[in-house]
Amino acid sequence: MEILGGPLFGVAAAGESHGPGITTLVFGCPAGLQIKRQDVQHYLNRRRPGGNKHGTPRNEKDKVIFLGGLFFDKDHDAMLAGPEVQVSADGAEFGTQTYEMGYTTGEPIAAVVLSTSNKSRHYEQFAGSQGEARPGHTDLVKHHKSKGFVDYRGGGRSSYRSAVSDVIGGSIARLFLQETFGTVFLSSICQVGDLKAEKSLTDLFTGHTADGKLIDQTIETMENGVIHSVDTEFAVAAGELIKQTRIKGDSIGAMVEVVGVNMPALVGEPLYQSLKLRLMGSLGGLHAVRGCEIGAGAAVVSRVGSENNDPIRRDGYQGNNHGGMLGGITTGMPLVVRVAFKPTSTITHQQQSVRKNLEEIDYQLHKGRHDPCVGVRAGVTLESRMAIEVMNGVLMHQAGRVDPQNFQLF
Amino acid sequence: MEILGGPLFGVAAAGESHGPGITTLVFGCPAGLQIKRQDVQHYLNRRRPGGNKHGTPRNEKDKVIFLGGLFFDKDHDAMLAGPEVQVSADGAEFGTQTYEMGYTTGEPIAAVVLSTSNKSRHYEQFAGSQGEARPGHTDLVKHHKSKGFVDYRGGGRSSYRSAVSDVIGGSIARLFLQETFGTVFLSSICQVGDLKAEKSLTDLFTGHTADGKLIDQTIETMENGVIHSVDTEFAVAAGELIKQTRIKGDSIGAMVEVVGVNMPALVGEPLYQSLKLRLMGSLGGLHAVRGCEIGAGAAVVSRVGSENNDPIRRDGYQGNNHGGMLGGITTGMPLVVRVAFKPTSTITHQQQSVRKNLEEIDYQLHKGRHDPCVGVRAGVTLESRMAIEVMNGVLMHQAGRVDPQNFQLF
Amino acid sequence: MEILGGPLFGVAAAGESHGPGITTLVFGCPAGLQIKRQDVQHYLNRRRPGGNKHGTPRNEKDKVIFLGGLFFDKDHDAMLAGPEVQVSADGAEFGTQTYEMGYTTGEPIAAVVLSTSNKSRHYEQFAGSQGEARPGHTDLVKHHKSKGFVDYRGGGRSSYRSAVSDVIGGSIARLFLQETFGTVFLSSICQVGDLKAEKSLTDLFTGHTADGKLIDQTIETMENGVIHSVDTEFAVAAGELIKQTRIKGDSIGAMVEVVGVNMPALVGEPLYQSLKLRLMGSLGGLHAVRGCEIGAGAAVVSRVGSENNDPIRRDGYQGNNHGGMLGGITTGMPLVVRVAFKPTSTITHQQQSVRKNLEEIDYQLHKGRHDPCVGVRAGVTLESRMAIEVMNGVLMHQAGRVDPQNFQLF
Amino acid sequence: MEILGGPLFGVAAAGESHGPGITTLVFGCPAGLQIKRQDVQHYLNRRRPGGNKHGTPRNEKDKVIFLGGLFFDKDHDAMLAGPEVQVSADGAEFGTQTYEMGYTTGEPIAAVVLSTSNKSRHYEQFAGSQGEARPGHTDLVKHHKSKGFVDYRGGGRSSYRSAVSDVIGGSIARLFLQETFGTVFLSSICQVGDLKAEKSLTDLFTGHTADGKLIDQTIETMENGVIHSVDTEFAVAAGELIKQTRIKGDSIGAMVEVVGVNMPALVGEPLYQSLKLRLMGSLGGLHAVRGCEIGAGAAVVSRVGSENNDPIRRDGYQGNNHGGMLGGITTGMPLVVRVAFKPTSTITHQQQSVRKNLEEIDYQLHKGRHDPCVGVRAGVTLESRMAIEVMNGVLMHQAGRVDPQNFQLF
Repeated sequence: MEILGGPLFGVAAAGESHGPGITTLVFGCPAGLQIKRQDVQHYLNRRRPGGNKHGTPRNEKDKVIFLGGLFFDKDHDAMLAGPEVQVSADGAEFGTQTYEMGYTTGEPIAAVVLSTSNKSRHYEQFAGSQGEARPGHTDLVKHHKSKGFVDYRGGGRSSYRSAVSDVIGGSIARLFLQETFGTVFLSSICQVGDLKAEKSLTDLFTGHTADGKLIDQTIETMENGVIHSVDTEFAVAAGELIKQTRIKGDSIGAMVEVVGVNMPALVGEPLYQSLKLRLMGSLGGLHAVRGCEIGAGAAVVSRVGSENNDPIRRDGYQGNNHGGMLGGITTGMPLVVRVAFKPTSTITHQQQSVRKNLEEIDYQLHKGRHDPCVGVRAGVTLESRMAIEVMNGVLMHQAGRVDPQNFQLF
Repeated sequence: MEILGGPLFGVAAAGESHGPGITTLVFGCPAGLQIKRQDVQHYLNRRRPGGNKHGTPRNEKDKVIFLGGLFFDKDHDAMLAGPEVQVSADGAEFGTQTYEMGYTTGEPIAAVVLSTSNKSRHYEQFAGSQGEARPGHTDLVKHHKSKGFVDYRGGGRSSYRSAVSDVIGGSIARLFLQETFGTVFLSSICQVGDLKAEKSLTDLFTGHTADGKLIDQTIETMENGVIHSVDTEFAVAAGELIKQTRIKGDSIGAMVEVVGVNMPALVGEPLYQSLKLRLMGSLGGLHAVRGCEIGAGAAVVSRVGSENNDPIRRDGYQGNNHGGMLGGITTGMPLVVRVAFKPTSTITHQQQSVRKNLEEIDYQLHKGRHDPCVGVRAGVTLESRMAIEVMNGVLMHQAGRVDPQNFQLF
Repeated sequence: MEILGGPLFGVAAAGESHGPGITTLVFGCPAGLQIKRQDVQHYLNRRRPGGNKHGTPRNEKDKVIFLGGLFFDKDHDAMLAGPEVQVSADGAEFGTQTYEMGYTTGEPIAAVVLSTSNKSRHYEQFAGSQGEARPGHTDLVKHHKSKGFVDYRGGGRSSYRSAVSDVIGGSIARLFLQETFGTVFLSSICQVGDLKAEKSLTDLFTGHTADGKLIDQTIETMENGVIHSVDTEFAVAAGELIKQTRIKGDSIGAMVEVVGVNMPALVGEPLYQSLKLRLMGSLGGLHAVRGCEIGAGAAVVSRVGSENNDPIRRDGYQGNNHGGMLGGITTGMPLVVRVAFKPTSTITHQQQSVRKNLEEIDYQLHKGRHDPCVGVRAGVTLESRMAIEVMNGVLMHQAGRVDPQNFQLF
Repeated sequence: MEILGGPLFGVAAAGESHGPGITTLVFGCPAGLQIKRQDVQHYLNRRRPGGNKHGTPRNEKDKVIFLGGLFFDKDHDAMLAGPEVQVSADGAEFGTQTYEMGYTTGEPIAAVVLSTSNKSRHYEQFAGSQGEARPGHTDLVKHHKSKGFVDYRGGGRSSYRSAVSDVIGGSIARLFLQETFGTVFLSSICQVGDLKAEKSLTDLFTGHTADGKLIDQTIETMENGVIHSVDTEFAVAAGELIKQTRIKGDSIGAMVEVVGVNMPALVGEPLYQSLKLRLMGSLGGLHAVRGCEIGAGAAVVSRVGSENNDPIRRDGYQGNNHGGMLGGITTGMPLVVRVAFKPTSTITHQQQSVRKNLEEIDYQLHKGRHDPCVGVRAGVTLESRMAIEVMNGVLMHQAGRVDPQNFQLF
């Protein structure tokens, strides 16, 4: 089933790019965590199309609406001060208030984000068995996999819009992990095309604990940058490169670094469900990703062991080539993953392609919107996926430390 | 995670009895099945509070709204003719059309049913650690399990209202199984208190195939009855018994028979994930159920093998003591399950209980609504759960019959 | 996949009745539990064919051999004092010591039980598409489900011999739960044919805590009985009934009561993965089971709510109609399940049947061994399955109570 | 639970490096596939320690013993001609024949590989809380995660020896996929230290179908090479580099390319369980891996879309930058993954470390065996993990194509 994370903390979701909305369920958050709608909205705003000048021109409000899983005994009015939903069905009108805030109950949390800026008429070029297959996209395989019953509009369910759910689930994991351990997840764009950043989160956060001020400053720097990077000079140059690429009707690749600081140690099951395996899959499996690396990454191929092993002293690991995990279990050092994105498949150049019935064509996009560099908006999704896997790993580890005090009623 | 069925076809859900709504995801329906909103609404109407004079006086519209997973290439207007949803959030107003019909795409399907008739003020009696624990209910254990962070209104997530999701998922399974195999799921109330029905679905449907007219007549009989039973005389008497029980402020138990006819054979994995295990769990695990039996059920304890074994001839099994499964695999005979419901825990009598802080009280319900006999509305949920498990089993069996023709693109 | 329990504590297994052996993996036991081979062997001996005069005449040594998942740092010799295994393969001979005892490490535990008393020549009657299908057995459906590739010898994988794995997994869960909470699982045969026991475990164990002496006496009474029941007079009569039934070449049904005492409270996730659902599935899904009930069971159908609700006082629930669970969550009261077994399908009478190619025959067993009353040996398997589900539920509940102390390394 | 692959085809396993053996269960292979012990042994021999002059000097026979899941109706003697197993337990001796060959039945398959060359005395340096933690290894985290109850001998369960199970499961997937689609999985070492191969499998296999002779020649070339690479000159130089590194007491990194040819198309669920996500996790999650890439890999970061999109013509994709998957679904082009291994953590140099109680030490290995370049033996494990995920994806896709013909019994 289409589940991210799990088996304890996970996200299930449905909804297509140009359908009515994205529906998200978040499972397994322990009872007692305060959730404010605006906390989750904050992360969604970072993902939102239209929220960044180098992103897609599509503009979505992306307002999250909570329909279940929260409760606030002390003030029902404050709890129910969220967006009002009205429905007209079969001649009747009815409506309901939704949650503005509340505490988790241990039950699943439901959230909906409606899609209000769909422009489906742009996608007639792709309809039916005469529809054109966009090179680099999933159009052709999904048409045949589904025997033609696919929502091809804007990539349908395979659109990056599905990441709304990742961000909602990630937000809840982040709130829990920050409250419990002070854990914070950050991401920085470190390469666009051939331009490479000289500053990195990995260089900034090098110990078992991270300073709160440094975290805040880093977040502020990145949020104010032209693109989301700790290297502000690089951000300016990369922004210009993206702009020029867009003008040419082309797209460009990017590398994004994702880091968790103030990490809980001992998280992750060894071997087949190790945190390393889970992160490689979850972050490496995101749309448009072609490579994923942990800690020192692929550079280790050129190294000898005596330079790659991190020394250990009484106060902790003295280096982080291991990227915060050994044997797939967290050491408490910053969790470090880097992800390589291909250039967005949607470009305006003419390309060789076929119709879905395999008739050959010279394909050219009639009209539509796209991100020239998918890395620009990917950071918050990567942070979310990292948070979801860490959260699940935390619960898994806790499960093995049974305290009989927790099993008393009378 | 809170999933019904699976791993191939399953339902995930969230939402509390008195929260904004019930959110449902349905996974794993193969692409190409036509779904009309009204087909699903039809089953929801059978479950709906207020839909039966012997059920709870709570009146819910229970309109299903489809937000994802459907598509109809040929007519986007017909597809999007479903209920209109409007949201006011942060000073902005926005809305969307939802699906009236469409074909499944193989992607998850999302549906929301809003709760519009909540009367939460009735539940102040139960709030906080001073709140009273209703005997027979989950109030006390859930309060302590969640460290006090539980939505106690109307049972919260543990309310029978959660069965909305079972019915939505079951509806989709039923549409698929009926289209593919002609399979139909039926249920009949067969006992209320000491009153026992003399007619049963098991006696009506005794062969590998069932006549369409007989199915239609049986459904009509049951839908027109005082309560949902093939035995109309019993239905009248049982209806009266329920009414008298309600007048006394008490509640009463019931037994419900659930049958699948025109069953696909060879469905179900042996042993730890056998269809028998799955049905016992799914149907026997429903709210208020205290017993579950297959085929001849507990009566087999008194039998010898020579009377209990069903003879086999060239045209099939000559009896159905086995209830349609041997070794947890379907034989093609009607699938037969019977489920015993306890009397509804909510009654108006005074009872010994405690506050959630364990202070002793003489408990009496201040005000509230309830079903005096939970069996009255349970049938459609049981049919749904049976359909979900059969559907998952069908996909599991098909997975083992690999045809290379299905793996060609060019 | 063929897994019992889970996702945290579970059992996976393979092996056919007349194959080389039964292989078992047990997942998710927390680190630090002492396991002695003889502790597990003790439970296997209760299940063992040949261990009871009313069971099958097949005699299996059923010696468990531990191959992984244990460790004892302080004394490797004591650890490796288990059975010696020797293998001849491709002209080479090699061997290894196995574990006599050790502590769990949190990693999966592997155990093998070899089958040494196979008499496969008795099963030629059932070979191939001309093979005869035994009424009441899974022969016919498994032949067609597997396209003829089924091990039909003694029921193959679907044999009750597969329960060896349940007992091994259950033993480990029992050791953990007894050490942590004092929990003990018991079972008593309460009906054979029309003979009903007058004493029951449910009547003996009526409070939140159980006396150790009473537990020990009860176990001793049952182990010394003619059959495993707290009612010794019933046991004598039932033993005689089984003997007479066997002489007639027939078989007979039985009901078994399974009870957990000194139960941890608050165990079980609500709703779709509730402990009630899991127990109904796991116990009700066992071979030959046709009915399963919780607490007061199907008798509740005839009751009104005012007699069925259990009063609550400061010191706990004052009755156990609820069978130790409300809303699928444990209350701490004894966990009570009753299971109805059909008469063993294997009898010596002539019966109408078919060959696997559907040719009609008068079927009669040529030769073979069988239990005339499958309930005689089922108790320890039911206790095991109950323990496995409770164990998984304990870990699930603990997962939601995160203590940051458990996540420190330096 | 510790499961590789799934939910339909998967591998579960247990066993530590220096324990009695590795136990493996393989789930979900459809009925009717012929398995010969020697077919599986062939792949195990490629993984076997002692099988390559640049691998560890530890010499293990690694004979696979099949204990369940196979059957061959026509010739029981041929079926049972496998290794003989003898056990001495509690004064009794007993034994059994095991499977030499058979057909899968759809039930789980059990296999055991005993460990016969353990030299545990080498590991006393690491015992208990005074034990030394090897830099780069999982010793320290596993000691604390398990509260000291860890089998530290040779890395225990986290040893690369656990990959025996991956290879057994992979072998069965490979036999099925080769028989059904002609699919073959290959791997080639493409970099060691700074030395890079000039020839690659990706360059050799560029179309939707691959020539059988080319496959055979390529396998022969690699099996005869100094190390397993299609570039024989590189293999010689890399072999020499590894040898020199070993002499220095150090270790070195490596990159391995893994390719599936004659791939079935349309395999893989979109999004959260996409084949890309699963492969990134499974291959990228293997021991010592620090990076994983698909198709053109991290090189795409520097590209523009117009050069990275693969053109499509009537006869298929005209390039394979996409590495055989788009949207996580196979296109039928070769499946291409590259994996970066760190230098083996075990070296003979002195390093800064701690005891498990965090007391600082200058760590130096007393004695022990190791691979100086873990990439040398990793290929067959990577091929196996790829096969397992493809196999599971094939069954998942087939599940969605329901054919009622497969559900008939009479």
